[in-house]
Amino acid sequence: MKNNAITSRDVDFAKWYTDVVSAASLAAYSSVKGCTVIEPNGYAIWEKMQEILDKKFKELGHVNVQLPLLIPESLLKKESELVEGFAPEVAWVTHGGAKELEERLCIRPTSETMFCDYYKDHVKSYRDLPKLYNQWCNVLRWEKETRPFLRSREILWQEGHTIHSTKEEAVRETDQMMEVYKWFHHEILAIPSITGIKTEKEKFAGAEYTLTNEALMYNGVALQDGTSHYFGQKFAEAYDVKFLNKENKQEYIYQTSWGTTTRMIGALIMVHSDDYGLVLPPRIAPKQVVIIPIGKDDEIVNLSNEYATKLKEANIACYVDLTDKSPGFKFAESEVNGIPVRIEIGKRDLENNKITFARRDTREKIIESKDIDVVGYVQELLETIQNDMYKRAVERRDALTFTAHNLEDMEKILNTQPGFIHGDWCGDEACELKIKEIRGCKSRCIMENDPLVDGKCVCCGKEATKHVIWGIQY
Amino acid sequence: MKNNAITSRDVDFAKWYTDVVSAASLAAYSSVKGCTVIEPNGYAIWEKMQEILDKKFKELGHVNVQLPLLIPESLLKKESELVEGFAPEVAWVTHGGAKELEERLCIRPTSETMFCDYYKDHVKSYRDLPKLYNQWCNVLRWEKETRPFLRSREILWQEGHTIHSTKEEAVRETDQMMEVYKWFHHEILAIPSITGIKTEKEKFAGAEYTLTNEALMYNGVALQDGTSHYFGQKFAEAYDVKFLNKENKQEYIYQTSWGTTTRMIGALIMVHSDDYGLVLPPRIAPKQVVIIPIGKDDEIVNLSNEYATKLKEANIACYVDLTDKSPGFKFAESEVNGIPVRIEIGKRDLENNKITFARRDTREKIIESKDIDVVGYVQELLETIQNDMYKRAVERRDALTFTAHNLEDMEKILNTQPGFIHGDWCGDEACELKIKEIRGCKSRCIMENDPLVDGKCVCCGKEATKHVIWGIQY
Repeated sequence: MKNNAITSRDVDFAKWYTDVVSAASLAAYSSVKGCTVIEPNGYAIWEKMQEILDKKFKELGHVNVQLPLLIPESLLKKESELVEGFAPEVAWVTHGGAKELEERLCIRPTSETMFCDYYKDHVKSYRDLPKLYNQWCNVLRWEKETRPFLRSREILWQEGHTIHSTKEEAVRETDQMMEVYKWFHHEILAIPSITGIKTEKEKFAGAEYTLTNEALMYNGVALQDGTSHYFGQKFAEAYDVKFLNKENKQEYIYQTSWGTTTRMIGALIMVHSDDYGLVLPPRIAPKQVVIIPIGKDDEIVNLSNEYATKLKEANIACYVDLTDKSPGFKFAESEVNGIPVRIEIGKRDLENNKITFARRDTREKIIESKDIDVVGYVQELLETIQNDMYKRAVERRDALTFTAHNLEDMEKILNTQPGFIHGDWCGDEACELKIKEIRGCKSRCIMENDPLVDGKCVCCGKEATKHVIWGIQY
Repeated sequence: MKNNAITSRDVDFAKWYTDVVSAASLAAYSSVKGCTVIEPNGYAIWEKMQEILDKKFKELGHVNVQLPLLIPESLLKKESELVEGFAPEVAWVTHGGAKELEERLCIRPTSETMFCDYYKDHVKSYRDLPKLYNQWCNVLRWEKETRPFLRSREILWQEGHTIHSTKEEAVRETDQMMEVYKWFHHEILAIPSITGIKTEKEKFAGAEYTLTNEALMYNGVALQDGTSHYFGQKFAEAYDVKFLNKENKQEYIYQTSWGTTTRMIGALIMVHSDDYGLVLPPRIAPKQVVIIPIGKDDEIVNLSNEYATKLKEANIACYVDLTDKSPGFKFAESEVNGIPVRIEIGKRDLENNKITFARRDTREKIIESKDIDVVGYVQELLETIQNDMYKRAVERRDALTFTAHNLEDMEKILNTQPGFIHGDWCGDEACELKIKEIRGCKSRCIMENDPLVDGKCVCCGKEATKHVIWGIQY
């Protein structure tokens, strides 16, 4: 039984997306234009993301800090590219209480500025380096068109900021953190993303280069989902952040930053979910198993609780739905909320010594003896689901991955079924702009280690130097 | 050896406080007036606080959400007491990018408004109730005088917001959450706080009543450290939040909110710390044990690592300091940073089969056989430190707790050595205002279950109805 509140994703993908967000109680619109309420089901996914990423960051030596929300205009203006990149989309605080401020303050769109301001007074010598910071916080960008999780005025994110005494070390950090994002997408979110380097046009304002993690949604539209920037000494010069190097000379520090946001929740929806609601890979699901007793017989309720106890002891996030709702309602609810495994325990089944397992991803029902090793069985089932979801996402991505040799190919693909499009590029921004005229298609990333497709620019036909992946983006 | 960077707390308490904050790298001033950087050592304490409180909140059925940072002026203005209470101290956003906004938005000073706006569309019937929400976030209040952790323009906090179908249930929630804060202070922070009800004058703007958790600092100044508010149906009426009750009638919901902030880090410093730096109760210390090898002999380093492995396996937060600094420097650093237990392993000791344990709280050194059960020993030592710190805090609080029968008593106490002052009150705000003239002394809370001191108002001498604790506050 399809959830009637959800538009089919093959009929209207945009409507399907907002229907799932609403039906699974992930986020709600608020009275503040462009800002959403992240509801308990959505926030629990974010907490799980934070838990896993935070542990990984700390294993790699990073520590968390918290810098101010507000940035004085004069401080923001010190780095010209940054201010050009962000000034059009920041929110300005001009009054504190009834009083007009002498200098207006912007709500941070990102915190490079504030970190430089902090480094300046807290780094003296190479012995103080590296500094490996991260902060979990909110940032604000005055977006015009917004969509829950994908593009919102206020964003929850993590922003890593590190400084180093050598270029090599900073470059290694930039690469390492992109590997972390890739690992997180592939292993945890079951999203087979592609990573590469952004073109000059698409890189972060002020960065020497930007690495990006690009995921492909079910509809063939790409989503930039995690970036890692190498700044070199650019900000250090603008904000005068120096250290005494081993040769006893003053030198500017080498800097990186890297970030991921609640946008990853949007990616989870658009890669894995279906017309019945949310589908979550078990490793990121805040609740992995729901046990639904059909009826209130002692035997049924006791067995439900017994299973739940065993599963919880094995660190499986499990709960028993003992509410007053009907079994059918509970089934549909667990489905729309994307609980990976549902265990149904009913009287008739029990008389035959059976219980039923339902997989959310395939919606398959499996009848098993009630005496199976429930912990081992569920652990294996969760792993199977995780792996199957990843495989299906790879298949979908591959089915929507194309190769273009010229502009006609590009147009044909983009007008039929967009996806990741491999096509060589001469390196000229004019070609990027021309390709953008086709439904807003942009370079996703340069695949530096991949051989060229045919050595000719997909736009101008001249000699190409870079293998690029192109696509329409959110 | 006293840390020379730290002023003695008996010479200049205010200077001592900021010296400790800086010497222990808890927080740093920033280029944004009234806003601080919470540095890794400070933020790690906040993370530990979040971990313990969040677990407790969830055990009690609360779920986390995230509401927008910005509140439209018209929405804030719907509840008159709230707007009167907060409007003088909010920051106003007037521009998004280059454009002036049609309606200005304030940065949330607290989120009752936004929660009501959310409840309004998401609660229909008593079956939807209760809703037990919490959010971890930043709020902003345009304070004039600021001090790290104690009073800052931007504050990190948790704000719980709940709605209920009956008054009784909402009142129970208000009480329960105050009990959680009290438990957290006594059991985790080793701070023997006092809880009671605020007077009408001191309660939260818009609340029917406010419960407060009041801690006494080493210098006898009180700190409000956690509040829980019962709103009744006041906000529900202002924001039109109704539900269909069991009698099938529309009724306004019953509401609570409760919060604690990074101010608790300030309390930890001012209750427990000393002239050598930070002192942390083991249960809140992000790092509980440091092992310092004296010298680089294999035997010493191996034993250090062996101990560390065992302690970590027993869930004791432990690390080995293998940096290039001198042992003396490492000792001082672990002391200023408030690591509860230090294990020193040196060659001469080892030849005698001995190792040294140093307690941060008493600075006592204990020599033990290297073959003791290190895990059991450290677990017991951490518990002893926790309990001893609590006992000393109780002794200090009791030594600074006084009784006043009249204004002369009050003046004498406040001008000699402030503290918690027990004194009856007639209930007249004029008396509160008169007492405030003595060094800004305010009612901390009404002790509803305590018998009256002598039945006479400490200010006017008339018949008293309430036993109040008075004090000077941060």
